[in-house]
Amino acid sequence: MLENLSSGTYNAGAMSQLPVPDPPEFETIERLAVVGVGLIGGSIALAARARGVARSVVGVGRKLARLEEAHCRGIIDEASTDLTAAARRADVLVFCTPVDRIAEGVRAAAAVCRAGTLITDAGSVKGCICRVLEKGLPPGVEFAGSHPVAGSEKQGFEFADARLFENRVCVVTPVESTSREAVARVCAFWQKLGASVVEMSPEAHDAALAQTSHLPHLVAAALAATLSPENRPFAASGFRDTTRIASGDSELWSAIFLGNREQMLASLSRYEASLARFRQAIEQKDSTALKELLKAAKMNRESVANG
Amino acid sequence: MLENLSSGTYNAGAMSQLPVPDPPEFETIERLAVVGVGLIGGSIALAARARGVARSVVGVGRKLARLEEAHCRGIIDEASTDLTAAARRADVLVFCTPVDRIAEGVRAAAAVCRAGTLITDAGSVKGCICRVLEKGLPPGVEFAGSHPVAGSEKQGFEFADARLFENRVCVVTPVESTSREAVARVCAFWQKLGASVVEMSPEAHDAALAQTSHLPHLVAAALAATLSPENRPFAASGFRDTTRIASGDSELWSAIFLGNREQMLASLSRYEASLARFRQAIEQKDSTALKELLKAAKMNRESVANG
Repeated sequence: MLENLSSGTYNAGAMSQLPVPDPPEFETIERLAVVGVGLIGGSIALAARARGVARSVVGVGRKLARLEEAHCRGIIDEASTDLTAAARRADVLVFCTPVDRIAEGVRAAAAVCRAGTLITDAGSVKGCICRVLEKGLPPGVEFAGSHPVAGSEKQGFEFADARLFENRVCVVTPVESTSREAVARVCAFWQKLGASVVEMSPEAHDAALAQTSHLPHLVAAALAATLSPENRPFAASGFRDTTRIASGDSELWSAIFLGNREQMLASLSRYEASLARFRQAIEQKDSTALKELLKAAKMNRESVANG
Repeated sequence: MLENLSSGTYNAGAMSQLPVPDPPEFETIERLAVVGVGLIGGSIALAARARGVARSVVGVGRKLARLEEAHCRGIIDEASTDLTAAARRADVLVFCTPVDRIAEGVRAAAAVCRAGTLITDAGSVKGCICRVLEKGLPPGVEFAGSHPVAGSEKQGFEFADARLFENRVCVVTPVESTSREAVARVCAFWQKLGASVVEMSPEAHDAALAQTSHLPHLVAAALAATLSPENRPFAASGFRDTTRIASGDSELWSAIFLGNREQMLASLSRYEASLARFRQAIEQKDSTALKELLKAAKMNRESVANG
């Protein structure tokens, strides 16, 4: 089962384990460009150098002052606000910008890349990125999407951590036109950063993550929104934990919700039906039904390992 | 404001600070009976002895083997499965049983107590307990309800902690017939255990806690229930935090939901309206509205101190 993934590659669509027991031999990247140096981008930069995956990391962003700070902190080797200049010199690019800016960035970079350059991303939604980029990239430049399922409600490279991807799942989402070589290179990249790689279609990824990540964010935000100021002193650890992720960046999450709109609405419908079952049991004072619902929820919660 | 409570007593109904800057002189309890020795009862027992609030603590419960284990661990001085025998000898009793068993227990204990015995509880719902006990207790025996807003999804005295109540709010919920002396004794008891005491009506308590504790539990449970087994590997810290409290005991929480039924349903309606606003913004691809909703939720979340 997926729970036992170590560092192998797993094909979730076909339910067959690919024969990659150890991380394969992987190119050492001469120059890795990380586009968007926040929590995820900063962690990739740190991990790539700490693990010898890249000899040099250029951080690309819009705010030079922030990039210079990341440079001073030793997170990146070079800072650049010029994406095309950085793309011309990079061997591999990883886009860690908000999901609604990834496709255009990839396209701009791909237009100037050398042949053989590999582009991937770390966006939380995959369909709206991978399907848009399915066609029209220049020959010799390939994009294969990915999503490391790791993160935090915290933002900024100040919270970057070279070990963020260790023992985490990273989903790689090729489309039909993606070459096996590009898939292998992207898989090897994430494995070298410590992640367990799972290969899925962009659509299967978006359905799964709607349920495990995007819906929980919506649920937490909708709950946080209901708290009246006068009741704040009575919010203890239960409230705080349940709403913790509502502290995430509103621009990022708005883009994720709309980027994964259909699956979000489907997951939300499923959740509304679950809520309605609780409501009915409470309305009808049906203690037996309520206990059953709570027990099933508890078992489901406990099936997810803590960590 | 309530945020700045130290160890004073605060009357949330009247919005006036009672003149009790320091914990008042308090009786040292000769024999404290803790009825229900779980996480909360065990923590009361530990804190009462660690802070010199009681000279001796008798733990009362239904399972002798469990009580003997609590005794072996030094949590209680004596174990008893006989509530009335323990009540006859106690100066103060604190009921920490599930909320649907507190009122009958208090009535049974009160029937045999000596005059001057004080009875309180630690139940998460107050109306269904305090209003039932408003009348009919023998003369000289008083009940004043309370609820220390502290806890965990964990169960059992194995997780008891003498510091559980430190810097936590404890709500004391007298009714019209409760004497000021009984209120003062109960307030002093919790202050001595390290809590900040807030005085409220049972109804005001139940409305506040529905929003800050009971609804979050329902929200977390309804979300945990929607997770499909095949998606477990993609549940990261966001899912785990948002659903953590769904691991709570289903019997306890079923009794809380039904004990606070009207306020639960009112809070749930408020939450459903909040969810509907998110749904509408996603359906209409209204990124401006979605960002506003997420930003308001984030600000509300951040208004609640971590701790």
